[in-house]
Amino acid sequence: MIKPFNDIVIVGTGKVAHHLGNHLMKGGKVISGVWGRDSSKSEGFANKLNTKALSSLNELNENTLAIICVSDTAIGEVVSQIPDNTKIAYTSGSIKLEDLPKKPFLGVFYPLQSFSLDKEVNMSEVPFLIEAENKDFEDELMNLASTLSSNVLKANSQERYYIHISAVMVNNFTNYLYLLANEHLEEHNLDFNILIPLIKETVDKLETLKPREAQTGPAVRGDKKVIDQHIQTISRAETKELYKIFSKLITKEFKKDEL
Amino acid sequence: MIKPFNDIVIVGTGKVAHHLGNHLMKGGKVISGVWGRDSSKSEGFANKLNTKALSSLNELNENTLAIICVSDTAIGEVVSQIPDNTKIAYTSGSIKLEDLPKKPFLGVFYPLQSFSLDKEVNMSEVPFLIEAENKDFEDELMNLASTLSSNVLKANSQERYYIHISAVMVNNFTNYLYLLANEHLEEHNLDFNILIPLIKETVDKLETLKPREAQTGPAVRGDKKVIDQHIQTISRAETKELYKIFSKLITKEFKKDEL
Repeated sequence: MIKPFNDIVIVGTGKVAHHLGNHLMKGGKVISGVWGRDSSKSEGFANKLNTKALSSLNELNENTLAIICVSDTAIGEVVSQIPDNTKIAYTSGSIKLEDLPKKPFLGVFYPLQSFSLDKEVNMSEVPFLIEAENKDFEDELMNLASTLSSNVLKANSQERYYIHISAVMVNNFTNYLYLLANEHLEEHNLDFNILIPLIKETVDKLETLKPREAQTGPAVRGDKKVIDQHIQTISRAETKELYKIFSKLITKEFKKDEL
Repeated sequence: MIKPFNDIVIVGTGKVAHHLGNHLMKGGKVISGVWGRDSSKSEGFANKLNTKALSSLNELNENTLAIICVSDTAIGEVVSQIPDNTKIAYTSGSIKLEDLPKKPFLGVFYPLQSFSLDKEVNMSEVPFLIEAENKDFEDELMNLASTLSSNVLKANSQERYYIHISAVMVNNFTNYLYLLANEHLEEHNLDFNILIPLIKETVDKLETLKPREAQTGPAVRGDKKVIDQHIQTISRAETKELYKIFSKLITKEFKKDEL
């Protein structure tokens, strides 16, 4: 057995830091400090969490769990600054455990969600993917995640990596389609909200149908005339480009099914 | 004032015909018949709606509203077969009123939704876009739509056309991203359901944030290293292609904001 940690330090001051810090604090965890590269940001963030901004990471001790919420490129450097006896968890989907400096207590605490500053998240449904080489520490991270969410899973670095790629597709890319659709409608003085019931149903269908069964529209029908007219009507080059590519790929995908 | 219709004939046997016919029947409307090119399909569909399959459209009369739910390319031909004194509404987003044969009572009854056969839809939230040259008939279609949905709007052909394009983007294209994400996860023996909370949150955000404010992920951070590694890991050519294009467009979109 390992000695459990007493308190948590949040490393980073961005969106993940904000949401995790907040929910951990609300759950009664002791947040003993926050650290960020930009000291004015960390002061502000520390105030929100009723804690102090730390000036360095190399004074952390064995009683602390440092949760690293910085960008992927900075994780390695941050990990190397933290003393060996401190427990460390990082929150990235794409960085593999093996790619980081070796530490006795290093693990992954990855919330599979897209966090925005001005939007509360129902944390209890967020899948947490947990991994650590030390199995006692892995269990400790599983337990901590379970205080935040009822959807906690072990996943190795490769699995987490594959899942992160699909998360980028269904969130980042989908949201960019919303952005372009919104601009297209605004350009014609039409209200994006008219699309909300359709957008919700697109997601609802996933509960009962495979995405392949749920596909509808001109491209799946191979309705080239409608597609070409739509493309001509679209004014933004980016929207035109995506409209062409999706129509081509969807038409091909479902022609295949008929053969 | 025009004489109100007594009964409804559904023209077409596909997904829109199925859902509209069903909801109109449940709402107590008299469905006096259905017509489809494939007589065995129309027999089956007629049975479901407790009505008869019609062998032709040219015997319809002034008491009937024919709701046309056939593919865009067939609407003109169907309209021309229906007698002039019969009321006609069609359900397409892209076909403009002016592109169809002139008829005294011709209108649009467009449900802005993606219908699948094996998935019930909450019709009361579906936006219906209504248009007719004859204003009395337009009001009649507004009233009929209001028996199905609380979200009924007048929209001219051009507005409906613009909206349909954006609907294709947020439904058809988004669903295709789900399809590719599902395949990517299945290939690695991972369960697509892990993405559902993220997918739901992506949509929930639209209630409080503009899509531009909700954008997160490696491309908006300009994290080229993560993007390139993701692209290398993806095995399907179509997924690779879309991953590249979206990453390029999103990176460009948000670089613009910083200037």
